[in-house]
Amino acid sequence: MAEVNKVAIVGGGVIGAAWAARFLLNGIDVAVFDLDPEVERKTREVIANARRAQTRLHGAALPPEGQLRFAPSIADAVEDADFIQESLPEREDLKQRVLADIDAAMPDHAVIGSSTSGLLPTKLQSAMNRPDRLVVGHPFNPVYLLPLVEVCGGDQTSDETIASASALYTRIGMKVLHVRHEIDGFIADRLLEAVWREALWLINDGIATASEIDDAIRFGAGLRWSFMGTFLTYRLAGGEAGMKHFLHQFGPSMEWPWTKLIGPKLTDELIETVSAQSDEQAAGIGLREYEALRDSCLVDIMHALERNDFAAGAVAKAYREGLTGMAAVTLGSDCGDGLVLSGHTSVSPEWIDYNEHLTEWAYLKLFGDGTDVVLARIGAGPDYVASGFSFYTVETHIRHLGQARLGEKVEVRTRVLGSDSKRLQLFHAMINLASGAVIATAEHMLVHVDAKAEKSVPAPDHIATAMQGLVAAQQHLAPPEGTGRTITMPG
Amino acid sequence: MAEVNKVAIVGGGVIGAAWAARFLLNGIDVAVFDLDPEVERKTREVIANARRAQTRLHGAALPPEGQLRFAPSIADAVEDADFIQESLPEREDLKQRVLADIDAAMPDHAVIGSSTSGLLPTKLQSAMNRPDRLVVGHPFNPVYLLPLVEVCGGDQTSDETIASASALYTRIGMKVLHVRHEIDGFIADRLLEAVWREALWLINDGIATASEIDDAIRFGAGLRWSFMGTFLTYRLAGGEAGMKHFLHQFGPSMEWPWTKLIGPKLTDELIETVSAQSDEQAAGIGLREYEALRDSCLVDIMHALERNDFAAGAVAKAYREGLTGMAAVTLGSDCGDGLVLSGHTSVSPEWIDYNEHLTEWAYLKLFGDGTDVVLARIGAGPDYVASGFSFYTVETHIRHLGQARLGEKVEVRTRVLGSDSKRLQLFHAMINLASGAVIATAEHMLVHVDAKAEKSVPAPDHIATAMQGLVAAQQHLAPPEGTGRTITMPG
Repeated sequence: MAEVNKVAIVGGGVIGAAWAARFLLNGIDVAVFDLDPEVERKTREVIANARRAQTRLHGAALPPEGQLRFAPSIADAVEDADFIQESLPEREDLKQRVLADIDAAMPDHAVIGSSTSGLLPTKLQSAMNRPDRLVVGHPFNPVYLLPLVEVCGGDQTSDETIASASALYTRIGMKVLHVRHEIDGFIADRLLEAVWREALWLINDGIATASEIDDAIRFGAGLRWSFMGTFLTYRLAGGEAGMKHFLHQFGPSMEWPWTKLIGPKLTDELIETVSAQSDEQAAGIGLREYEALRDSCLVDIMHALERNDFAAGAVAKAYREGLTGMAAVTLGSDCGDGLVLSGHTSVSPEWIDYNEHLTEWAYLKLFGDGTDVVLARIGAGPDYVASGFSFYTVETHIRHLGQARLGEKVEVRTRVLGSDSKRLQLFHAMINLASGAVIATAEHMLVHVDAKAEKSVPAPDHIATAMQGLVAAQQHLAPPEGTGRTITMPG
Repeated sequence: MAEVNKVAIVGGGVIGAAWAARFLLNGIDVAVFDLDPEVERKTREVIANARRAQTRLHGAALPPEGQLRFAPSIADAVEDADFIQESLPEREDLKQRVLADIDAAMPDHAVIGSSTSGLLPTKLQSAMNRPDRLVVGHPFNPVYLLPLVEVCGGDQTSDETIASASALYTRIGMKVLHVRHEIDGFIADRLLEAVWREALWLINDGIATASEIDDAIRFGAGLRWSFMGTFLTYRLAGGEAGMKHFLHQFGPSMEWPWTKLIGPKLTDELIETVSAQSDEQAAGIGLREYEALRDSCLVDIMHALERNDFAAGAVAKAYREGLTGMAAVTLGSDCGDGLVLSGHTSVSPEWIDYNEHLTEWAYLKLFGDGTDVVLARIGAGPDYVASGFSFYTVETHIRHLGQARLGEKVEVRTRVLGSDSKRLQLFHAMINLASGAVIATAEHMLVHVDAKAEKSVPAPDHIATAMQGLVAAQQHLAPPEGTGRTITMPG
């Protein structure tokens, strides 16, 4: 499969629409086909949610959006597609028939991913002329935010198809889990169904309500599951004795009848009970409101995990760095005229105000990070701080001259205005790389301190020499505009 | 049960030690009894982890720690305890015997909580003289961070015992789930065991490895489970059609054989396989390192959910507000001498630098929030901003005069130095309420703008009048120290 520029979505429900959004937000053109006369309205609603969530998650690191069109037929949707994602209802006969239709109309080089949550690809591909082109790509709701996609080939799926679908899913920010052995329900849905079946029994037998069961998950194990899964969690629960000890200890309880063996019958009565409890749990909060809350929690959780460079946070971070190429710059290096390059980043979602502008305190955060870069360069970095000495900022003067928006790249360039035995005077300029304009400046006075004694002391020779070296390297420059200012009300 | 001041921990393993930490960090004295000669070392290690995590989560909102002692016998541990938490190994006969011993030695008013993860309280209390005093309080690892505790009484447990144990668990920041019907495994562990059993089958049958199974959870459903549980998740998956539609659609698949019916036999071979895969998954990262990573992720996730005031985040927020009473202050009110009270908060974990001091940018965040409070008071709050007009900060001058540490309360008091048709000049002082000292000041010049046109325009009359009113109310005051300053290197 060549570079993917066009994707067709066949089946435009909750899953198909969210796939469309993920592809569009990664700059890929999308054609959607679905028999539902309301497909356009519903799809655009999902895309609007996805755009809001992905913009908070990744900001302007995302490329320009692809073009969206609604196709009148399957043949029209797929005839120029590089990749087709099928998200029809979970009926084997329906999927077999439509997959054969797609196969008949798609270009020679195209590949098909099926969103099935549990049907076997060997069966799905049985009526196709080119069965080697079908692979399962099973996503999770909301598809535009959750990273997981299970990739599973059938007997006739080619290795090339698996590789190219995996590469595409990775490109759009997903975490590919290659299911190496074909099995009903793959891996994730077998685990989910185990929980779901037991949960329905607990309601069926009157032990607990829907709301109580959700609480049993979300205030306990669910918090761990969001980044560690089951085995790593139990490894830690085993403590110093480790996994083997834990398993031996757990052995006997595997024989205890703690779960029901088969699912309860979904009688009309049970369906009524569960629905009524679900209504009560949701208590007047609408679907759209809950979706927005869900997406907001997911974005904030992924940002939280990104701070730990772990699990879904590590995937999001690597994806964004891949999009922006931000990882390549060496902070602390010279950036012309003797200035120090002390910051280079794209504007993160958490730095944004209600207007989607870089917010007031975030300027000082970026300038402060720039100060740390300069301090590291003169030998007063983290190791020096750990030794009990440091520079403290005692005074700051900021001017705001322009704006930066979510995802725009900004750079901080730093001038060392002066130094003496205890003091260091810095002047930062923040440049919006989209326009080249200086959008803010900050002048700082720092004092060298003995942190334990909490008093100022002269800096050691090697730091004093490094400070003087930077001052000397920039001495030929005219004083920057905007230093030595006071704040006063005119006339 | 009267106010709880002393708690005894009987059984000091991973669970017991973490209970000890939770009680201590809430200012309650704790006596620990365990036969393990290393109990003191192990307990103190867990408490150190808990202190680090809870301090990041709640900072100095926590009260002074309680006193810890290690008791030489059960009788010594429990004789002056108001509450006893039993965390022995999961053997019914052992627990029955020790619970009877505890009962015989404890004060008249005391209550016992058992940490059992699945044994029935009716059986556990059968050998006790005062069986009404026993209730199950089943926590989740790490007990010092996860909020969930399942509370379940046996046939002889009194309502008063259930109420007083629930009140105590709530007081120490936990979310009580009252299990109203006694059942093996209660609610949460039945769900966990369903997942665990299926996960062991997947390894036993060679379908997937421990690492792949964990990925199937943590990159997908696990992210949702951390705040929504199962039923609310599926309600949203049902889309506009809702829960009843979802259940009808799901009906057929309940009959599909997607999960094994009973657990696999834990043969030596399976134990070897799982342990080896777990070792490979952990790949050279030690237990303590993983525990620290787990705790860091949990704290950041709870802070993320706190931003959404939802699930575990809502519990953490309500708990901290209860400890500090921070919710009672009315921002924007006068605080003497005509100054505006524009900030009142305790220093949050995310505002802290490596020295546990309030970090540089956080000062500007608190001052900026103070500016918003003053703007709301003069009629330029969020509604006004939504109408397309706003005040932008164009210049800022900050002086750093002192420090604030994690959890200390700080207040921002604001003087309005001047105003004209387009401008507003503010002077904030931040006071550390622990010392009463001014630790920083900020002088700001703001300009009234038409946000769409991106240019300054005169403020409307009602805002101009409000600004002049504040200036006039403070006109009798001497000019505050530290205004109109420039940053310059002396001599």
